[in-house]
Amino acid sequence: MKYWSFSEGFGLENLIRISGELPTPGPRDVLLEMRAASLNYRDLVVMRGQHGKLVQPPLVPVSDGVGIVIDVGSQVSGPAIGDRASPAFYQHWQGGPPPTDLDVGRLGGPLNGVLATHCVFPASSVVAVPPHLSDEEAATLPCAGVTAWSALSEPSPVRPGETVLILGSGGVALMALSLARASGARTIVTTSSAAKSEKLLDLGADLVIDRSIDENWARTVRKATDEVGCDRVLELGGAATLSQSIKAVRTGGTIILIGNVTGNNAELYLPLVLTRRLTLHSVTCGSRAAFEALNRALEQHDIRPVISKVVPFQSAPAAFAALETHQDIGNICISSFQDGDA
Amino acid sequence: MKYWSFSEGFGLENLIRISGELPTPGPRDVLLEMRAASLNYRDLVVMRGQHGKLVQPPLVPVSDGVGIVIDVGSQVSGPAIGDRASPAFYQHWQGGPPPTDLDVGRLGGPLNGVLATHCVFPASSVVAVPPHLSDEEAATLPCAGVTAWSALSEPSPVRPGETVLILGSGGVALMALSLARASGARTIVTTSSAAKSEKLLDLGADLVIDRSIDENWARTVRKATDEVGCDRVLELGGAATLSQSIKAVRTGGTIILIGNVTGNNAELYLPLVLTRRLTLHSVTCGSRAAFEALNRALEQHDIRPVISKVVPFQSAPAAFAALETHQDIGNICISSFQDGDA
Amino acid sequence: MKYWSFSEGFGLENLIRISGELPTPGPRDVLLEMRAASLNYRDLVVMRGQHGKLVQPPLVPVSDGVGIVIDVGSQVSGPAIGDRASPAFYQHWQGGPPPTDLDVGRLGGPLNGVLATHCVFPASSVVAVPPHLSDEEAATLPCAGVTAWSALSEPSPVRPGETVLILGSGGVALMALSLARASGARTIVTTSSAAKSEKLLDLGADLVIDRSIDENWARTVRKATDEVGCDRVLELGGAATLSQSIKAVRTGGTIILIGNVTGNNAELYLPLVLTRRLTLHSVTCGSRAAFEALNRALEQHDIRPVISKVVPFQSAPAAFAALETHQDIGNICISSFQDGDA
Amino acid sequence: MKYWSFSEGFGLENLIRISGELPTPGPRDVLLEMRAASLNYRDLVVMRGQHGKLVQPPLVPVSDGVGIVIDVGSQVSGPAIGDRASPAFYQHWQGGPPPTDLDVGRLGGPLNGVLATHCVFPASSVVAVPPHLSDEEAATLPCAGVTAWSALSEPSPVRPGETVLILGSGGVALMALSLARASGARTIVTTSSAAKSEKLLDLGADLVIDRSIDENWARTVRKATDEVGCDRVLELGGAATLSQSIKAVRTGGTIILIGNVTGNNAELYLPLVLTRRLTLHSVTCGSRAAFEALNRALEQHDIRPVISKVVPFQSAPAAFAALETHQDIGNICISSFQDGDA
Repeated sequence: MKYWSFSEGFGLENLIRISGELPTPGPRDVLLEMRAASLNYRDLVVMRGQHGKLVQPPLVPVSDGVGIVIDVGSQVSGPAIGDRASPAFYQHWQGGPPPTDLDVGRLGGPLNGVLATHCVFPASSVVAVPPHLSDEEAATLPCAGVTAWSALSEPSPVRPGETVLILGSGGVALMALSLARASGARTIVTTSSAAKSEKLLDLGADLVIDRSIDENWARTVRKATDEVGCDRVLELGGAATLSQSIKAVRTGGTIILIGNVTGNNAELYLPLVLTRRLTLHSVTCGSRAAFEALNRALEQHDIRPVISKVVPFQSAPAAFAALETHQDIGNICISSFQDGDA
Repeated sequence: MKYWSFSEGFGLENLIRISGELPTPGPRDVLLEMRAASLNYRDLVVMRGQHGKLVQPPLVPVSDGVGIVIDVGSQVSGPAIGDRASPAFYQHWQGGPPPTDLDVGRLGGPLNGVLATHCVFPASSVVAVPPHLSDEEAATLPCAGVTAWSALSEPSPVRPGETVLILGSGGVALMALSLARASGARTIVTTSSAAKSEKLLDLGADLVIDRSIDENWARTVRKATDEVGCDRVLELGGAATLSQSIKAVRTGGTIILIGNVTGNNAELYLPLVLTRRLTLHSVTCGSRAAFEALNRALEQHDIRPVISKVVPFQSAPAAFAALETHQDIGNICISSFQDGDA
Repeated sequence: MKYWSFSEGFGLENLIRISGELPTPGPRDVLLEMRAASLNYRDLVVMRGQHGKLVQPPLVPVSDGVGIVIDVGSQVSGPAIGDRASPAFYQHWQGGPPPTDLDVGRLGGPLNGVLATHCVFPASSVVAVPPHLSDEEAATLPCAGVTAWSALSEPSPVRPGETVLILGSGGVALMALSLARASGARTIVTTSSAAKSEKLLDLGADLVIDRSIDENWARTVRKATDEVGCDRVLELGGAATLSQSIKAVRTGGTIILIGNVTGNNAELYLPLVLTRRLTLHSVTCGSRAAFEALNRALEQHDIRPVISKVVPFQSAPAAFAALETHQDIGNICISSFQDGDA
Repeated sequence: MKYWSFSEGFGLENLIRISGELPTPGPRDVLLEMRAASLNYRDLVVMRGQHGKLVQPPLVPVSDGVGIVIDVGSQVSGPAIGDRASPAFYQHWQGGPPPTDLDVGRLGGPLNGVLATHCVFPASSVVAVPPHLSDEEAATLPCAGVTAWSALSEPSPVRPGETVLILGSGGVALMALSLARASGARTIVTTSSAAKSEKLLDLGADLVIDRSIDENWARTVRKATDEVGCDRVLELGGAATLSQSIKAVRTGGTIILIGNVTGNNAELYLPLVLTRRLTLHSVTCGSRAAFEALNRALEQHDIRPVISKVVPFQSAPAAFAALETHQDIGNICISSFQDGDA
């Protein structure tokens, strides 16, 4: 088998392809022959060595992937040989409240990730993925897909007739757009160019706001909601957008904190937060139960993740480079894992 | 003004049309010029004098209706003259948990209902209705519409990808079908004839089961859900259907108890209820907050209640008679309230 | 009757005692003969004219008070003459999600408050208070008491065995301490002097941290919770304390945002918020249903608010002055409303 | 090692003590040296061969027990050698909604139970137990203790000031009594003798109703709650008590269905269930997350399960016999597992 590893340090220059022995699953494990992977912004942070003390080389990167079960341990009752499955982002969070030691169980750092032709996981930590999806599409689900689902489910689920504001057009944002529509919500999406605006309208957004020409977009959101404000904001921006998000949301509304691509230190204007009785709830991925619920919704609504680019396994570092300069909407995937592995 | 009243006793023969003085709203009240009303099964129970000690003649019957605000009290800040609005079924339940004395605040018994050309209600107990609906359609919302909404919202909301089983094709059932679809759920509906089956498929049901030829329909539901069972049953039948409903639902699933048209004493087979960790949750109508949430969903999805028959105000008793022998699907309405009132 | 009013402007110098006509309750109203009131930090903000555009003179200030029903309108069925009752802080929020126009219904600004010998309220906006409380104690409930209840109830209730961290020793903090104990939680309270520490231990706090000698108190909280962190923080500080609160709370934990006495612009360090999947939920007071639930808990546990000072109605401005220089723990009350009113 | 097994059929006469090889834990397993076990009513149903098709001999019975970790697999990171731990009743339910195949993962049938000197479990399916408990006390937690916790936590948690009615005085009932008190609730318990009444009052019940002299106990409950009714009933009786429970509960209240010792077919009077908007929610045990939350509450409040009888491992069948004729209150335990095992 082959795998990519930050073997001696982080940075793309240290991402090395290595040959190894095919691993053997223990009695409660499964062995996956990987088919595809998908990158998240978090994988960039790991690559840059900025993910904190817990995440150290040597490390096989990337959390999101999919494979085929080719071997199962003697005590495995669920997954069977031939099933297509993805490992859960949090390998030790099955459902309910997050475990106290949540950060130790993440794939792609601190645990080895999926950028390998073959991987072993506990059988209870893999999830069957919807049959209507291609391998590349299915590969986007474990973190990006589940994050979008959780963002519409916590702390209480979005309901038909509510208005959901989604900031941006990355993989999480686009999946959230599809899921919000399937949930019966009205959707408003902010983006940064006319080209992206058009694509978002094609994907079914009820209203798209181009931030590059509408700086005070909170105002536009309030106008579009009879001055009530939206019910929920999927805050994928971070420091630079939070104050507008707070202005855009209704009394009693919810801001889902997901990303910090625009900076780590956000300012929180308390009088507005207090008077409006707002909830700010942070969501990173979710449990295996959330993953399974997501899959049911995707299948029922024939929803497909948007893939913007596919890079072969042999050229995996090029996928990281592409994400760094990403101008398109959707997910960057890695595929052809089994080509050339002998 | 004119109104219908069970003035000296129950039974259709005692439902009399009476002329009265136009009422004056108090400082916190509104006066509605009524436009339409809609009958529920409960109105039949009241008409038969079977609704219990609390509901006594003289009584203006019928809970569901809509009118135009033609006068407001001096301290009213919300509704304005010219608004179209419906009174809430529970006049004293604004939101949150139901009040302890829930049954004293119901329209159409014990409180006087909407079968009158003009009615006064507290301003805080009327709700603006969606503009895309006709008066007859809007008239169905206060009890039938809100019950359908509550049945998909409590104790926790239905989510996309879940399977909802709806028993029957009355006004609540049809509205629940539309709302379940808007919520992203898969829908299975049971009915009793081939003709109704066709209409239900037209309305978007994913699967229709004709109980007249499929007695063991719980079996069919389980087959249609990979032997898992449905997530939620809207139990509009009662005694005759509950045991099948329990067989049809998944482990951890929910049965929403709404009706008892087939009898009052249902049998509950505890071993199945316990092993499957089921929830049986009873829903009759809901709060004003639920009514407002319903309206937002109806407007966002352009949902319209199904009207099967319209009877003019002057012939209101005929509407009760029609409901008793009801063979069609949808709501029976009363309209033309203001014709001939001078 | 007599009342205090900021008649021509804000500031203590503009708080004038005025004589007026006894008001008459409308058909759905009650008339209260007031007995006591209690000040909150918010009343200081109003007095300083810093509460925003909506709150303007002339204004009868103060939201929290209690009185005796001495007259009821013709259509009132609940409260009766002789009952002791308090008006709800939000006069138009009975239960469920907060209304969109939440801020227009607040007592003590923009609505006239309770600093009057006689007040009229809608019958549906007053709540009977627990008989075991003195008038001064009962007067603290509508905003301070309900805020403490909501802070332990939203977005989900505190459970036995959880650890609740309470910042400070004002009226809300002390009530929250008693209620958290009644809920079975372990309590940690931060305070600013050795004298207050002793009182807080007397009131049953499991651990008291003196911030004046322990600057890095988040560290102390984590040590005291086996490095897990507390489950919930009642964030009564604001800008100056939020970053420590975020450090003190567990993965999946909740920070209840209540106050901003230390500043309006708080900094939110997103990486920690995101990695720990935190919820920040703002709570100002709550609905009438919350008030009723609070009262049941107070009565069951014989809980009494802590009163630090009582000022007679005739000297009401002195109560504001006392709150500005407040060094003690507990609530500052105003009493003897009916002395000298003829 | 030694274990008891229904090796060739059910019935006490088929419960045989067998010697076997010490099992070896797999890489993700732990090996427990068992110290104590505790019987539930369910273990009697299994013993009688009445638990349904899924539960078949040969079977090591009993779900509730505790032991010491004496070996761990190579990939185990949580439990360590020397820890005291209990296996979770549902071996495959970590948290969140119950898995679809809930019944296949139960200890003591269909999975082998704890009536063995040594047992292997997945490391993710054992839970550390509170240090203040004796082995016998700790042994009661996995099913009886967790059921009591779930009964006060689902579908929403009991709050201070609420009234909880508990039917009976078995192991679940007594634990629920202690936990309801720790949650701040008022407690009413029904029992069947004056002797038990006294013990229940000693344990802190606010009111005890002797059903043997008060047949219409629902009436008594309503009187004791100002005719409002209790908020929650822990329905441990079943067919014979459900109709009284429905009469005893408040509008909007909850009946937790736990047991069916008095029969399988209960009658449900729909008009009362519907008018009162009741919820009937069935609870059998709960997830591993519930077990951990229970333990925190027990430790915080120094709560100890009530043990009525202890039988040594060598005489385990006597414990089943004792449970069949059980007249006392509390749990029947089995201890001294390691005596005579060589």
